[in-house]
Amino acid sequence: MRRSIATVCVSGTLDDKLTAAAAAGFDGIEIFENDLVVSPMSPARIRSRCADLGLTIELYQPFRDFEAVPEPIFRANLERARRKFAVMEQLGVSTMLVCSSVSPSAVDDDALAAEQLRALADLAGGSGIRVAYEALAWGRHVSTWDHSWRIVQLADHPALGLCLDSFHVLSREADPAGIAGITPGKIFFLQLADAPQLRMDVLQWSRHHRLFPGQGAFDLPEFVRLTLAAGYDGPLSLEVFNDVFRQADPARTAVDAMRSLIALEDAIAPGLPDFPDLSGYAFAEFAVDASSGPELRAALRGLGFAHTGQHRTKPVELWEQSRCRIVLNSAVTRPQAATISAFAVASADPAQSLQRAEALLAPAHPNVREPGEAELAAITAPDGTSVFVTGDGDEWRDDFLDTGSTVPGAGLREIDHLGLAQPFDHFDEAGLFYHSVLGLTPLSTEEYAAPFGLMRSRALSNAGHRLRLALTVALLRRGEWAPAVADPQHVSFATADIFATAAALDLGMLVVPDNYYDDLAARFGLAGEFVDALRRHGILYDRDAAGGELLHLYTPVLGGRVFFEIVERRGGYARFGEANAPVRMAAQRHRRLAGGVSWTRQP
Amino acid sequence: MRRSIATVCVSGTLDDKLTAAAAAGFDGIEIFENDLVVSPMSPARIRSRCADLGLTIELYQPFRDFEAVPEPIFRANLERARRKFAVMEQLGVSTMLVCSSVSPSAVDDDALAAEQLRALADLAGGSGIRVAYEALAWGRHVSTWDHSWRIVQLADHPALGLCLDSFHVLSREADPAGIAGITPGKIFFLQLADAPQLRMDVLQWSRHHRLFPGQGAFDLPEFVRLTLAAGYDGPLSLEVFNDVFRQADPARTAVDAMRSLIALEDAIAPGLPDFPDLSGYAFAEFAVDASSGPELRAALRGLGFAHTGQHRTKPVELWEQSRCRIVLNSAVTRPQAATISAFAVASADPAQSLQRAEALLAPAHPNVREPGEAELAAITAPDGTSVFVTGDGDEWRDDFLDTGSTVPGAGLREIDHLGLAQPFDHFDEAGLFYHSVLGLTPLSTEEYAAPFGLMRSRALSNAGHRLRLALTVALLRRGEWAPAVADPQHVSFATADIFATAAALDLGMLVVPDNYYDDLAARFGLAGEFVDALRRHGILYDRDAAGGELLHLYTPVLGGRVFFEIVERRGGYARFGEANAPVRMAAQRHRRLAGGVSWTRQP
Repeated sequence: MRRSIATVCVSGTLDDKLTAAAAAGFDGIEIFENDLVVSPMSPARIRSRCADLGLTIELYQPFRDFEAVPEPIFRANLERARRKFAVMEQLGVSTMLVCSSVSPSAVDDDALAAEQLRALADLAGGSGIRVAYEALAWGRHVSTWDHSWRIVQLADHPALGLCLDSFHVLSREADPAGIAGITPGKIFFLQLADAPQLRMDVLQWSRHHRLFPGQGAFDLPEFVRLTLAAGYDGPLSLEVFNDVFRQADPARTAVDAMRSLIALEDAIAPGLPDFPDLSGYAFAEFAVDASSGPELRAALRGLGFAHTGQHRTKPVELWEQSRCRIVLNSAVTRPQAATISAFAVASADPAQSLQRAEALLAPAHPNVREPGEAELAAITAPDGTSVFVTGDGDEWRDDFLDTGSTVPGAGLREIDHLGLAQPFDHFDEAGLFYHSVLGLTPLSTEEYAAPFGLMRSRALSNAGHRLRLALTVALLRRGEWAPAVADPQHVSFATADIFATAAALDLGMLVVPDNYYDDLAARFGLAGEFVDALRRHGILYDRDAAGGELLHLYTPVLGGRVFFEIVERRGGYARFGEANAPVRMAAQRHRRLAGGVSWTRQP
Repeated sequence: MRRSIATVCVSGTLDDKLTAAAAAGFDGIEIFENDLVVSPMSPARIRSRCADLGLTIELYQPFRDFEAVPEPIFRANLERARRKFAVMEQLGVSTMLVCSSVSPSAVDDDALAAEQLRALADLAGGSGIRVAYEALAWGRHVSTWDHSWRIVQLADHPALGLCLDSFHVLSREADPAGIAGITPGKIFFLQLADAPQLRMDVLQWSRHHRLFPGQGAFDLPEFVRLTLAAGYDGPLSLEVFNDVFRQADPARTAVDAMRSLIALEDAIAPGLPDFPDLSGYAFAEFAVDASSGPELRAALRGLGFAHTGQHRTKPVELWEQSRCRIVLNSAVTRPQAATISAFAVASADPAQSLQRAEALLAPAHPNVREPGEAELAAITAPDGTSVFVTGDGDEWRDDFLDTGSTVPGAGLREIDHLGLAQPFDHFDEAGLFYHSVLGLTPLSTEEYAAPFGLMRSRALSNAGHRLRLALTVALLRRGEWAPAVADPQHVSFATADIFATAAALDLGMLVVPDNYYDDLAARFGLAGEFVDALRRHGILYDRDAAGGELLHLYTPVLGGRVFFEIVERRGGYARFGEANAPVRMAAQRHRRLAGGVSWTRQP
């Protein structure tokens, strides 16, 4: 199917938008009137620019509030339309969108609406133009797709058909099944947008919070299937009003948008290489320097890790404890703070995982491999982290020379999850990336108040919970007040007995306030001895609705911007203890202040 | 009256919040439970810390969902309360807030609610604690202040009274007049929050968009008068949940909060020096350097200004045309881009203006005055701009030596308004600052889609429109994609005949796209010759509902971050042509790209 994107989806001036859409591989574009009005390019120049870029102009949205109005307004509206048809002829676009009226002048009269739309279609048809009528979810008298379809049927003109917009249909929670029964050929255009479920005014929801397919809560595959069943063969066109996308790099947003369509088409008619099973994290890699390296090494030792391997050719160390593997990479230079620079997932079929990633436009990570080293291919995640894909057999370990070092350990068994704070502009992109590329499914999205502002957290996991990932982002892009460590990255290790592990640690863990334990006892009605045991070790606690429990321990922030966590999951607890994140953040700040470490402004 | 602030109003950990509240001069504080739970300070330590800072703990908010529940839950709730009373005794706080229940377990039974609240009050009274019951606007069964008052009367216990929160009362649009009839002594606590009028779920509105009094749409003075009429003599306590304040510098936010209370008290019982009449802008000052200075000088010459004065002791030039005065200050060093560093307002009584500013915590601007120079006192606005206050007699001009230069001019008469892009964290603070300190009233707040993201614009003006100001801010803090000039500052000059002015200019004004004029004709039904005249000169056009018209002209962005505008107002048009801002921004970007000037990332 042809793939199209509306200019409102991305930031910049019209030329920025066209360039970004073409670079991401779109076939077509919808031009929003405002983008044309502010452009120095004439309609004819826009047409040739699009042609040069390989873009078809699929739709023009020149005005609103056309139909079901008193005669004098109708005459003025027709005159307006005539002027816009002239612009469309110069643009070379043959479909015009007309949204259902929100004007106070409009009357509730389907026959009048049909009659006036028929007159518009007559005028349009003479210029070879088709009019696609769309029910806005907040239209004054017409707000559902079936109502707009009744009016189109009543008008009965070959140049008048429907535009269906998934947001307007699905936000109303009406059953869209009847769409499949629309007369073939009468759906002139299909606009796609996803959205999170929000309790707010539908207009505000639509104008600020739309998302690309797969990033929200709507069933877009089913919606598209219904339109295809009605014989629709036009483009799949994204129309997403989103406050963040409107101000983010358009080149990035366009790739995100294209990825969403590729994944949507695959959900409708599978064609991409399937997800191979991922059995877990093979390793997590930290970029360290002369300042952060020693702090991380000391922490790993205290957590019971041994420095077991040294890379054959690079300044890279392997630290292990059971199946927990941490790589410290001194070759990657990043300023100031340690960071999770890479992680590796173990795939049942690495080549197929990478083929899928490539098909979904995941950028390949440039990897410099010396002769004799293991093939270790990687892609780059939206936050810049490298994602290596290895086999299940740990071949990558052959690149490391054994140091012979062993230690008893502290009972850590494997990496439970990674916690990755995302760049503000790329949170929804990241969710779709990990979902479509690695097959991780969002379990929940939480918002909570933290000491430096509101946070959003999204928990993802693959089937069987072998690979878990927590993405976080500040609800508003941080400013000068927020300390750099407000958004640390972390690696969480699983233990089967957190009390035994806590006793075996040789590291100053994060000090959790007494007030927290007093409240915990009141909140959950926990036994006094149990709370005392948690308090003694600084272990935090959460319980889900089904009685599953999480017991977890944190280190302070290390090397500037990372920390470790130890978790014991009981009774099928699947989340990440988000409720305790504000406690951790406040304690990490206090530790930091007490340690006399100065707060650096985040980059 | 005592002034208090809830810890939820500001960012940081509890100690950050207490420090900020004390520094801003608050007498008391409300402690939100989460702030205590995450604090390493014990309740007793918090009490002594507050005492050291001169803060009384006025209220504690330990839990929700207390009343009208089945017996077993009620027993558990009482036990929870007992634990919290112990914490409160250590804190030394005597009033506990209980919000109306939102729990699905709560039943719609006023008698049961009253009975259980009476039992709670009995338990509280034994510890010397009072319970303040508050109707949440989204309470399950109790959501209005009069309903909560009926339950409190039914319970009839000396340790049970009401907490009134202006948001919960005023967001419901019910008439609050009956508050004045509440039995004296039964309003235990008063929480104040303002808010903009928004069409959204009331809970989301409350949790994310509250503002300090005077920053929103609510009539807080009347609300407070009603509670005072009911004999309330407790503190005025701010409880403002706001996404921006939660992540901004708490010291700044606390001062903004205190200013809102001072202004509110003055509105209820005038005590501050009144606003002297402001007759307009005496001058606007640009900070320039060796790079931006020549570009601004050339532009001023092209606009018909003469370099009329040179400062006696400083590298400061005065440029004039009629009553338009521009000062170019090369002594102020700011990196990279020119900026509006200061402006002066002409006051009928400068000393009184400054007394009022001081009473409202406006920071005094350090001014280095040489002997013999005019006294020119200044305060610092929230964005760092210096605001000088001069008399009506232009005494400040004596500091400049006359150059003798004169030119014919281009018909510019005075400064019409300034356009100041505000730092993201300080937009609402700025609105309150200019309102309370200078007496400017908000005319309107607009949101519009601009090429680099959504914008918010607030127009302010004093009585008689002698002093107009446009504040703008990006709806989301800008990131890397946005060019520095996405948020330029500007000075707008008034002319009585924009066509004559346009003909007299000797400067390349901003090129406005033909598409804009084609659309303008269709949109407003303007005569062809009139549109042609606008087009010929690059004049933009707007019309208000009453038929008032704005004709305006822009320069490109100059010196990196400023531009000039020329406006002709016809028929009482009072706004600023916000609808044309996206056209300007796109054209300024195109001009910039065409000129080969590189885009620098904003600081």
